[in-house]
Amino acid sequence: MKLKKIVLTGAAGRLGSYLREPLSQMCEALVSTDITDDLGKLYANETYVQADLASYDAIFPVLEGAEMVVHFGAIVDEKPFEELLGPNFVGSYNIWEAGYQQGVRRIVYASSIHAVGMHKKADFIGIDAPHRPDTFYGLAKCFTEDLGSMYWDKRGLESVHLRILSAAQVNNARALGSWLSYDDLIQLVTRAVDTPSVGFSIIYGVSKNDRAPVDNAKASFLGYRPKDNAEQFAEAVLAETPAPDLTDPGEMLQGGPFAKVDLGQSGIAQMKIVNDKKTV
Amino acid sequence: MKLKKIVLTGAAGRLGSYLREPLSQMCEALVSTDITDDLGKLYANETYVQADLASYDAIFPVLEGAEMVVHFGAIVDEKPFEELLGPNFVGSYNIWEAGYQQGVRRIVYASSIHAVGMHKKADFIGIDAPHRPDTFYGLAKCFTEDLGSMYWDKRGLESVHLRILSAAQVNNARALGSWLSYDDLIQLVTRAVDTPSVGFSIIYGVSKNDRAPVDNAKASFLGYRPKDNAEQFAEAVLAETPAPDLTDPGEMLQGGPFAKVDLGQSGIAQMKIVNDKKTV
Amino acid sequence: MKLKKIVLTGAAGRLGSYLREPLSQMCEALVSTDITDDLGKLYANETYVQADLASYDAIFPVLEGAEMVVHFGAIVDEKPFEELLGPNFVGSYNIWEAGYQQGVRRIVYASSIHAVGMHKKADFIGIDAPHRPDTFYGLAKCFTEDLGSMYWDKRGLESVHLRILSAAQVNNARALGSWLSYDDLIQLVTRAVDTPSVGFSIIYGVSKNDRAPVDNAKASFLGYRPKDNAEQFAEAVLAETPAPDLTDPGEMLQGGPFAKVDLGQSGIAQMKIVNDKKTV
Amino acid sequence: MKLKKIVLTGAAGRLGSYLREPLSQMCEALVSTDITDDLGKLYANETYVQADLASYDAIFPVLEGAEMVVHFGAIVDEKPFEELLGPNFVGSYNIWEAGYQQGVRRIVYASSIHAVGMHKKADFIGIDAPHRPDTFYGLAKCFTEDLGSMYWDKRGLESVHLRILSAAQVNNARALGSWLSYDDLIQLVTRAVDTPSVGFSIIYGVSKNDRAPVDNAKASFLGYRPKDNAEQFAEAVLAETPAPDLTDPGEMLQGGPFAKVDLGQSGIAQMKIVNDKKTV
Amino acid sequence: MKLKKIVLTGAAGRLGSYLREPLSQMCEALVSTDITDDLGKLYANETYVQADLASYDAIFPVLEGAEMVVHFGAIVDEKPFEELLGPNFVGSYNIWEAGYQQGVRRIVYASSIHAVGMHKKADFIGIDAPHRPDTFYGLAKCFTEDLGSMYWDKRGLESVHLRILSAAQVNNARALGSWLSYDDLIQLVTRAVDTPSVGFSIIYGVSKNDRAPVDNAKASFLGYRPKDNAEQFAEAVLAETPAPDLTDPGEMLQGGPFAKVDLGQSGIAQMKIVNDKKTV
Amino acid sequence: MKLKKIVLTGAAGRLGSYLREPLSQMCEALVSTDITDDLGKLYANETYVQADLASYDAIFPVLEGAEMVVHFGAIVDEKPFEELLGPNFVGSYNIWEAGYQQGVRRIVYASSIHAVGMHKKADFIGIDAPHRPDTFYGLAKCFTEDLGSMYWDKRGLESVHLRILSAAQVNNARALGSWLSYDDLIQLVTRAVDTPSVGFSIIYGVSKNDRAPVDNAKASFLGYRPKDNAEQFAEAVLAETPAPDLTDPGEMLQGGPFAKVDLGQSGIAQMKIVNDKKTV
Repeated sequence: MKLKKIVLTGAAGRLGSYLREPLSQMCEALVSTDITDDLGKLYANETYVQADLASYDAIFPVLEGAEMVVHFGAIVDEKPFEELLGPNFVGSYNIWEAGYQQGVRRIVYASSIHAVGMHKKADFIGIDAPHRPDTFYGLAKCFTEDLGSMYWDKRGLESVHLRILSAAQVNNARALGSWLSYDDLIQLVTRAVDTPSVGFSIIYGVSKNDRAPVDNAKASFLGYRPKDNAEQFAEAVLAETPAPDLTDPGEMLQGGPFAKVDLGQSGIAQMKIVNDKKTV
Repeated sequence: MKLKKIVLTGAAGRLGSYLREPLSQMCEALVSTDITDDLGKLYANETYVQADLASYDAIFPVLEGAEMVVHFGAIVDEKPFEELLGPNFVGSYNIWEAGYQQGVRRIVYASSIHAVGMHKKADFIGIDAPHRPDTFYGLAKCFTEDLGSMYWDKRGLESVHLRILSAAQVNNARALGSWLSYDDLIQLVTRAVDTPSVGFSIIYGVSKNDRAPVDNAKASFLGYRPKDNAEQFAEAVLAETPAPDLTDPGEMLQGGPFAKVDLGQSGIAQMKIVNDKKTV
Repeated sequence: MKLKKIVLTGAAGRLGSYLREPLSQMCEALVSTDITDDLGKLYANETYVQADLASYDAIFPVLEGAEMVVHFGAIVDEKPFEELLGPNFVGSYNIWEAGYQQGVRRIVYASSIHAVGMHKKADFIGIDAPHRPDTFYGLAKCFTEDLGSMYWDKRGLESVHLRILSAAQVNNARALGSWLSYDDLIQLVTRAVDTPSVGFSIIYGVSKNDRAPVDNAKASFLGYRPKDNAEQFAEAVLAETPAPDLTDPGEMLQGGPFAKVDLGQSGIAQMKIVNDKKTV
Repeated sequence: MKLKKIVLTGAAGRLGSYLREPLSQMCEALVSTDITDDLGKLYANETYVQADLASYDAIFPVLEGAEMVVHFGAIVDEKPFEELLGPNFVGSYNIWEAGYQQGVRRIVYASSIHAVGMHKKADFIGIDAPHRPDTFYGLAKCFTEDLGSMYWDKRGLESVHLRILSAAQVNNARALGSWLSYDDLIQLVTRAVDTPSVGFSIIYGVSKNDRAPVDNAKASFLGYRPKDNAEQFAEAVLAETPAPDLTDPGEMLQGGPFAKVDLGQSGIAQMKIVNDKKTV
Repeated sequence: MKLKKIVLTGAAGRLGSYLREPLSQMCEALVSTDITDDLGKLYANETYVQADLASYDAIFPVLEGAEMVVHFGAIVDEKPFEELLGPNFVGSYNIWEAGYQQGVRRIVYASSIHAVGMHKKADFIGIDAPHRPDTFYGLAKCFTEDLGSMYWDKRGLESVHLRILSAAQVNNARALGSWLSYDDLIQLVTRAVDTPSVGFSIIYGVSKNDRAPVDNAKASFLGYRPKDNAEQFAEAVLAETPAPDLTDPGEMLQGGPFAKVDLGQSGIAQMKIVNDKKTV
Repeated sequence: MKLKKIVLTGAAGRLGSYLREPLSQMCEALVSTDITDDLGKLYANETYVQADLASYDAIFPVLEGAEMVVHFGAIVDEKPFEELLGPNFVGSYNIWEAGYQQGVRRIVYASSIHAVGMHKKADFIGIDAPHRPDTFYGLAKCFTEDLGSMYWDKRGLESVHLRILSAAQVNNARALGSWLSYDDLIQLVTRAVDTPSVGFSIIYGVSKNDRAPVDNAKASFLGYRPKDNAEQFAEAVLAETPAPDLTDPGEMLQGGPFAKVDLGQSGIAQMKIVNDKKTV
């Protein structure tokens, strides 16, 4: 059944932007929301509403009549806890509580590998690995997953938590394993929306990379079958990769640069520096 | 080595009919048996014997000289225990005991997902999931698997238990995960027959569906590698699928309609009704 | 709350006899039943009804108004399948189906180690070990456990399955591990009755023997804490025990003598012979 | 080595009150803190500081020079998320961040069964069971455990998370399993303090009850060996316990009354009502 | 980064010969070594050094300046312990100790299925299966894996242990599962060399055979994705395969012929005999 | 049955000395052996034979007619590999091979926690934890366990591997968990001898310490139930224990001082230094 209404948060963000078109095709009305003034040109059945995730009163009316919320809105960088508290923690609560009050059936959430970023890459963790956040950013993902578990157990509100590994270009050795292509991201979100029942589910957002360090077997019923493989970039990337420091958490752990960044310090910036050095 | 003699029970049934030709090619003599009078035209090396599974005296001579039995005969619907007791419970005993007495080497058995039908679909159960039958029909499958385990442990009689998920058309959302195509069924039975040693093995009978809810990893040595994928029907089927009732066991559990049918009440009829509504 | 009515089957059997008194104290009315004519002297609130477990019509009225059934009735020896089919298989069905129809809340069942008798002693199996029956006798226990699982999942009828290891004297080396004293048996049944909710549970019936080969950890919530320890008999028993044949299933497997007896051949007799040789 | 300074938060609370004396004996200076004006008579080496956990500026100076913080301060009841956000969420952050900035070595935290309250009692969960909070109160415990994991992984700040089951009187059937006596609470906190290294650890706070529904095996190295057993109250309590409603989450799940309370609604009150009815 | 120097031991052996060319392309200088006088024609950047693995003094200088050692040198057959002690046990020690003293970063080792050869084929063992060697040859592989684990844990010297199943022709039923094609061998070694960090890793060396009896899931991060499939030989091989003896360890266990050979007796010879009988 | 002959190796060692008397009571003839000239006064049925473990010819005749060997002989300290190769590696081979040739039924071996010393104490490892040796000394224990596994699988020679944690005085914090009292050592060896069948078994040698960091559950069938508890020394020991360095492997890992010693460097000496500082 085509859905009547989907709400997309974080619609102005890097990943959110890619989702507007495919989501607009899965429903009669797509309501996109973000904190920016304007989203530019809209799709035929798309509406834009500016709203601050940290404000329950702003979020509540946006969700009226929605069957699903695709919740990608958040500060997407490591920051001091105080800065993340509103959008990333309270924002998640607002989405779930307003969703429940408005009769939303399901929330599809952009979680992150950083919820489990302190596990070793070599451990090939599954979706049931215990939380081991690497940053306050990752801690907010842990919080939201637990929140989603509770709303399902107590109130029957479904959610799928997409633990995205990395969606940037493949220009460093870690990304050979962690890459999620935009096409695969779209398939992932599509499956999370079109699967008839999902309960409370967790799934890693990663392409079919030969070197993928995580195990989605236990999420098989969702039918996510990625198509892209970062191995196409391996030769070029590895040619530029020096012998690693084996005592560096950023090398050995799932979270990569976030696994070694100081708490509250931006990791995205650091990732960019690393990337600049290694651009293919 | 080409086998000298295979016995196929349930040869007149829906799945049995598909197996006659491929099995006839794997042996010098195929003996097909069922409870009906006549099987129609036979293959060159095929013989038909009418026999009631519930009668040891009827079954015993049919198995003389056989190396393998492909045991698909049974009432294939939920019924009161009293009705299933003869063909589905005692019938299995008769096959195994007569098989042992006649020197049969291996039995390939049509078990069913309904032996474990009360597990959640989202749990991605493996072949070692504990029995959780959803019907008396499923209970007979549990009984036969345990019987097969015992005859292997105590008497060295091998068996492969094919837990078939669903072999109908893909015309409802559950079947997107549970479908077993006829081609894959044939490959599955072929592997169960041609693998040199199998001991006591369990394997799920399901195609290579993106949304398959069960895990065959632990049966890998059998080499069953399905080719068909129900995802080709997903768009059409999902377009007709309404938002499910998340408290419905038929929606959430492996057994599907059998997971919610009353014990002793026909589930097949119910499956048909569901299917009629959703024919593609 | 004191129960209004408990039904005890197999009341004339060796273990059933020990249970009559403690059960009579847990309810207002105890109805004891067995296939013998007469039970001898009854307790104040005890009634005796002769009934054949294999007959649904005989069993149905006995369960009227009962809150719990303590089901110890069965042929307690290995026999040909045909002989066990009535009392041990159909008998269990009759108890569960009549129980459900009569509104019984819970069934406490004398299951047995022989449901998992082909596992190695050295494996320290838990209550979740897969079924590996060693005899038709054990197969009937598997059947009944699966039946109990289904009635709980589908109909909310609770059951506790007591996998008794051995309740004989401690006069052979196996019994140093497998012994269940009568006092501990009574505690075990008492816990199975007085625990407010049990769902579908399995627990090993074994005393607190130093050498107990099974693990009850996962049944801890039932609060069974045995007091007796067969180690008191160890010195005497081991002095008489020769070096074992390490290829003998009766020595190495959980089922002991049943693990090596031919299917359908009495194992109890064999156990007695073994015991006579080694009486302390 | 006797510690120089311990800080106890929640010192005016029910459990905190019991800890003041034993903690005062484990260090040269005990600083007790809570939100109330006054703590009454102090122990010889005890100081009282009024402070609001939700205020970093209030908490930071209290922790100066402390080696360990025993963090029992929080709202100890289910409340709307907004009310718990300050003391139970931000409060934990304040303790860990101020602790890190002040060089605190270890935090001993009063976590709760309600972090995993939606698991079944019959599942005998270990300390590695995934979070399944039953309330916002439990969600704050999940948040704090993940926070503690991160500060250990990233900054080497140790913590022990005591998942207390119930510390009230044993006057209902659930408490026969969940009871933590005051003596055992004191032993538990003592072990959490005196064990030389603990890293990031979780342990259930429960007495040696026969019917304890959780498994502390994986926390064995802490040496917590409870002495009290609620079984002494079993006969009296069970005599007053009616047959339970088996569809009631409060009966079947670890969280007890919290497992069925509406989110944001006080559960403690409900527990009291239940208790009043059943006082021994 | 192209490596400066790789040392290949066992360069004259069957597998080593196939590795010389690909390894020569991954580094500036390839030093090949073996116990034979001469290796024949060398690749442009290849040097040959004759050296006895059992001699530390011979091995030490060969490793000077090497970043990685690909260690395939050993007696590749079952022999009495005394004969294997030098090359297969002490030889491994020499490589690791000299490697550490010379600053080698990583050792890629030709381990073998025979380190775990007594596990059942039907068990689909993973890379974390406990050691169960089937021969002294396999025991040397266990020894070397443990040695590699220790040098990583204690000294940060990385190693990848390639548990090769069988690299012969596919001319018997076992090889349908165990075959490692030469192309896949080369990919396997390439991944073991080019993955930036590997720590201590184990991986099975087997092609993408439908009937592969081992599970490499936990080594996924290495990115080894074999391309060849022995199923192409299945029809021809199975046509020649008689019904197996199910009590034969060589049939049922991972180690195949080594699983049944007497300790210290050559197994390769036996494998050849078996193979001669069944050449396609 | 009283055994005819037991051989004890390492009879002059610290632990061996304690075993002479109890072993002499379990057999008709005890043959003690070690590398020293003389053992002093012998028990009535004890004979002493001087023999070098590294010499097969010396060991072979000692084992003639023995039913069991209690193998405690070895260099009990970390040393360079070359020094341990004879007594600790080849010595084990000699015992097993000579034992097999002489018809010995079982070997009881003094293995060590150092076979798994690089696991974390907080992980509460079971007997099935993978090998992670911390020293060459520990590597010899790994080698011998794998050797014992092979001789059982291939030749039916039983062995019990006692992974002793520490048998010194309890004068440091680690020993509060790792202590094995002499009485418990004797019970442990007694059970390893008197249990009728053991196959290949591993068990930790540790007393019933509250803080024991290892899990013997899977070895329960052996009936080892220690009586002593190092907690009696806790107060005195902890009073002298400073805050640990949490980055010190010697503090955090099972192997204690061996986990941080350099390979080939004596750890016993280091342990003594530590102990001297902390003598109670």
